[in-house]
Amino acid sequence: MIAFAMNHVYAVVMAGGVGSRFWPRSRERSPKQFLDIVGEGTMIQNTVARLEPLIPPMNTIIVTNKLQQELIYQQLPFLPKENILVEPVGRNTAPCIGWAASWIKHIDPKGVMVVLPADHLIQNVGEFLRIVSVAVGVAEETDALLTIGIQPSHPETGFGYIQFDDIEERNPLAAKGVFPVKTFAEKPNIETAEKFLASGDFLWNSGMFVWKASSILQEIQTHLPDLFEQLLVLEASAQQPTFKTVLEQTYGMMKSISIDYGVMEKAGHVYVVKGDFGWSDVGSWDEVVRLSRTNGEGNFHRGTVVTKDSKNNYVDAGSKVVATIGVEDLIVVVTEDAVLISRKGKSQDVKEIVDYIRRKQMNDFL
Amino acid sequence: MIAFAMNHVYAVVMAGGVGSRFWPRSRERSPKQFLDIVGEGTMIQNTVARLEPLIPPMNTIIVTNKLQQELIYQQLPFLPKENILVEPVGRNTAPCIGWAASWIKHIDPKGVMVVLPADHLIQNVGEFLRIVSVAVGVAEETDALLTIGIQPSHPETGFGYIQFDDIEERNPLAAKGVFPVKTFAEKPNIETAEKFLASGDFLWNSGMFVWKASSILQEIQTHLPDLFEQLLVLEASAQQPTFKTVLEQTYGMMKSISIDYGVMEKAGHVYVVKGDFGWSDVGSWDEVVRLSRTNGEGNFHRGTVVTKDSKNNYVDAGSKVVATIGVEDLIVVVTEDAVLISRKGKSQDVKEIVDYIRRKQMNDFL
Repeated sequence: MIAFAMNHVYAVVMAGGVGSRFWPRSRERSPKQFLDIVGEGTMIQNTVARLEPLIPPMNTIIVTNKLQQELIYQQLPFLPKENILVEPVGRNTAPCIGWAASWIKHIDPKGVMVVLPADHLIQNVGEFLRIVSVAVGVAEETDALLTIGIQPSHPETGFGYIQFDDIEERNPLAAKGVFPVKTFAEKPNIETAEKFLASGDFLWNSGMFVWKASSILQEIQTHLPDLFEQLLVLEASAQQPTFKTVLEQTYGMMKSISIDYGVMEKAGHVYVVKGDFGWSDVGSWDEVVRLSRTNGEGNFHRGTVVTKDSKNNYVDAGSKVVATIGVEDLIVVVTEDAVLISRKGKSQDVKEIVDYIRRKQMNDFL
Repeated sequence: MIAFAMNHVYAVVMAGGVGSRFWPRSRERSPKQFLDIVGEGTMIQNTVARLEPLIPPMNTIIVTNKLQQELIYQQLPFLPKENILVEPVGRNTAPCIGWAASWIKHIDPKGVMVVLPADHLIQNVGEFLRIVSVAVGVAEETDALLTIGIQPSHPETGFGYIQFDDIEERNPLAAKGVFPVKTFAEKPNIETAEKFLASGDFLWNSGMFVWKASSILQEIQTHLPDLFEQLLVLEASAQQPTFKTVLEQTYGMMKSISIDYGVMEKAGHVYVVKGDFGWSDVGSWDEVVRLSRTNGEGNFHRGTVVTKDSKNNYVDAGSKVVATIGVEDLIVVVTEDAVLISRKGKSQDVKEIVDYIRRKQMNDFL
């Protein structure tokens, strides 16, 4: 474990997600990142906490939206309020990262930023911090844009992939596990994913980035010049009483675009650091089941669960009591007002349930 | 349908049950008879309502206990309060029926009583009323003790059986479907139940009785003389201010005994009326499932249920929303504080769930 904080390093935690995949626990007003879905602490609390050996709270920035602002204050009360950047509207990752970069560069022109989603799980925190440190070291000394790529364990079709240049002779950073990126690939179909896995030079795109704030702003200036101008407007009014109005107007005009598509796929100096630290994006209840420790009968119980002849069930009883009799391979999630009962392996269809609830305007249950 | 009320006829509805077989809907304070488990109206409301063409509310008596007294007032507000007999402690059916008989004889010496459990389902009400009328007719003209026996449809091990004398030549009531009882048989094992069914002269004991109040009191005097004395004590103090105290003391001393064991198995003049009117004691969630009309996919839904790839499920969502994905043959019952998920055919094990909850003293859930 690295025990010293790096003063020029900033965390930028992106917390605008409105995932519906964890219905009935995730709701419009409390998406996944605010839930304690795996283990203790909510996902955003754990995201901030695991970085603390490297990055203290005063260097931790959260980018979120109005709906979730209050939950951030509640769950991360030790963060300075000025570190919570509240987007008036969501415009995908490029504006979000651009704003955070301009905020950091304004107070620390040499600042390096570690950009992370708020809702991922990392099981080997020591190794994760080591990888982040490697990336930070490279970013401090160069203008490189670094991504953290995950060693894939199976042909996943739910992630984008990063192909890296694996010829070590021409890569002075190979010893550190840092490689030039050849291409970014969209979410593949299963055949393509299998080819990616077999090739050995594809990694999962984790959505984690490391770079100097000045480096990414320079690339934004080149590849997204409109956004760059808009960020200059924000910076100019940062200390003004009119800032809120300027923010609303400027964000309203921004184009919705991802940092991957808007910058990473076009820029030079793009590197990937290979990581293997028990990463998961925790994308479905089935993934949660996989990550949960079961008892002797294969059951996972959270809360008060009474069973008879039942095995291999995942049961989150919330504040109720749940009794199961003679059932197996179920995922059961109970909240104050809703109950999900899904066969294991089928939980991706939760999205269709939520879509139905939305179509029927059963808004209390969204 | 019989359209005239019979003035000397009284209903005695026994409503002291504390069934746990419908957990989580049935609770200590709201047993099965107070629930709308099948169709509309609660079971006790339906029990009283279906008799109304024969027996008006002022002739309807409920025997219950302190815990359930308030629910009776709420669910049957049109009954005179003096018709609600509240037992201080439960002492099985003989004291319950004896008290009701003495109450009726006191106000109507010629009164005939129709004794019924509060929590049975009857699908063919017209035929049921016809059978009751036949029994009442015989009771009015004789001192017979009549039971209503149900034509069995399968070798059920959960009921007692009544064997009748089927030699019609020596039975002047055979034409009416009324037969002398040979024996009362306890709940049989499956082999015995199959023999009973094959023999053709065994009926299910429905726990419904018809007799003059004076007739049953005479038999109680013969076969349960202690109880008879205790009933005289109650009758003597009926209009006194001390009645409540006398009731508590007297009931406290009564022996707990069923009318079947204490009287019916020993008395002469015992007859059974054969009934076939879609009777069910609704003894388990599986029985409820059998009685419920399903949609095209074999699902029964009550409340708000959203499904995907799910069939042959019984889902009672209570006031919540329940979503099912890829599941079949489940019984799901949701209440404010509890959720039951049972495989179909296994719901008798609900009793074990309740036993566990009791042992663990999770009293809020009882």
